[in-house]
Amino acid sequence: MVDDHERDMVEEQADNSHDTAAASDFSSVKFDSRGLVPCVVQEWTTGEVLMLAYMNEESLRKTLETGTTWFFSRSRDELWNKGGTSGHFQKVRELRFDCDGDTLLAIVEQTGAACHTGDFTCFDGRWLSSPAGEQPPFLARREG
Amino acid sequence: MVDDHERDMVEEQADNSHDTAAASDFSSVKFDSRGLVPCVVQEWTTGEVLMLAYMNEESLRKTLETGTTWFFSRSRDELWNKGGTSGHFQKVRELRFDCDGDTLLAIVEQTGAACHTGDFTCFDGRWLSSPAGEQPPFLARREG
Repeated sequence: MVDDHERDMVEEQADNSHDTAAASDFSSVKFDSRGLVPCVVQEWTTGEVLMLAYMNEESLRKTLETGTTWFFSRSRDELWNKGGTSGHFQKVRELRFDCDGDTLLAIVEQTGAACHTGDFTCFDGRWLSSPAGEQPPFLARREG
Repeated sequence: MVDDHERDMVEEQADNSHDTAAASDFSSVKFDSRGLVPCVVQEWTTGEVLMLAYMNEESLRKTLETGTTWFFSRSRDELWNKGGTSGHFQKVRELRFDCDGDTLLAIVEQTGAACHTGDFTCFDGRWLSSPAGEQPPFLARREG
């Protein structure tokens, strides 16, 4: 296991014996039976979770090549570049995978709003539990 | 659309005409053909994305009833209470759904570590892109 303190070392030594995959090596990623893997998108500055979308191998490759997020739309059955229509691109600062290799985490700089409704995140104001009545500390710090 | 500034109002007026679902009303949530919905779990204090897991209707109900996260294990085909074995419970502070109703976001206070490997998050040290070389600002603030 590689922790944050070893990042520099890993960057120099990157090979398959570490948990860092080369840009073109997706062997750490487990695509499901549809060839998809869910990708959590988080904002680089604020820490807000913006959205969840799905990548196939081609969209993952395009994301790494272009530095902006590409997903596979299950409803439209096509690749899409987030922001390609709206201009609300997501510049990828980090792309990670989880311990099982079946989820990705993209930490991005969001231009404009992430949600097609115009909300900054796709989770804004949609509650299953009662609102907590206070903001999470990581957000409160942003405003402090 | 309801934004953060209207939370208090929503709490008082909660009904189906708003985007706040009552605790037992899951009509806003779209379970997939397997009866599952992905749930992103984020840490309340630090903002770190801890893990992604899946909920069915029963695990969602138990999460709201107990205030700790319950998921459905696709590999073990059973409900599990995160922390039930390890003691590393996740106390739910917020539970949200997204604009399409097909993803949940639980913001939790994590006891111990979220990952079965002992890492705090399931994404620690696992990179598809080169590490950014700096921490996201929301994390840097935590340590500042």
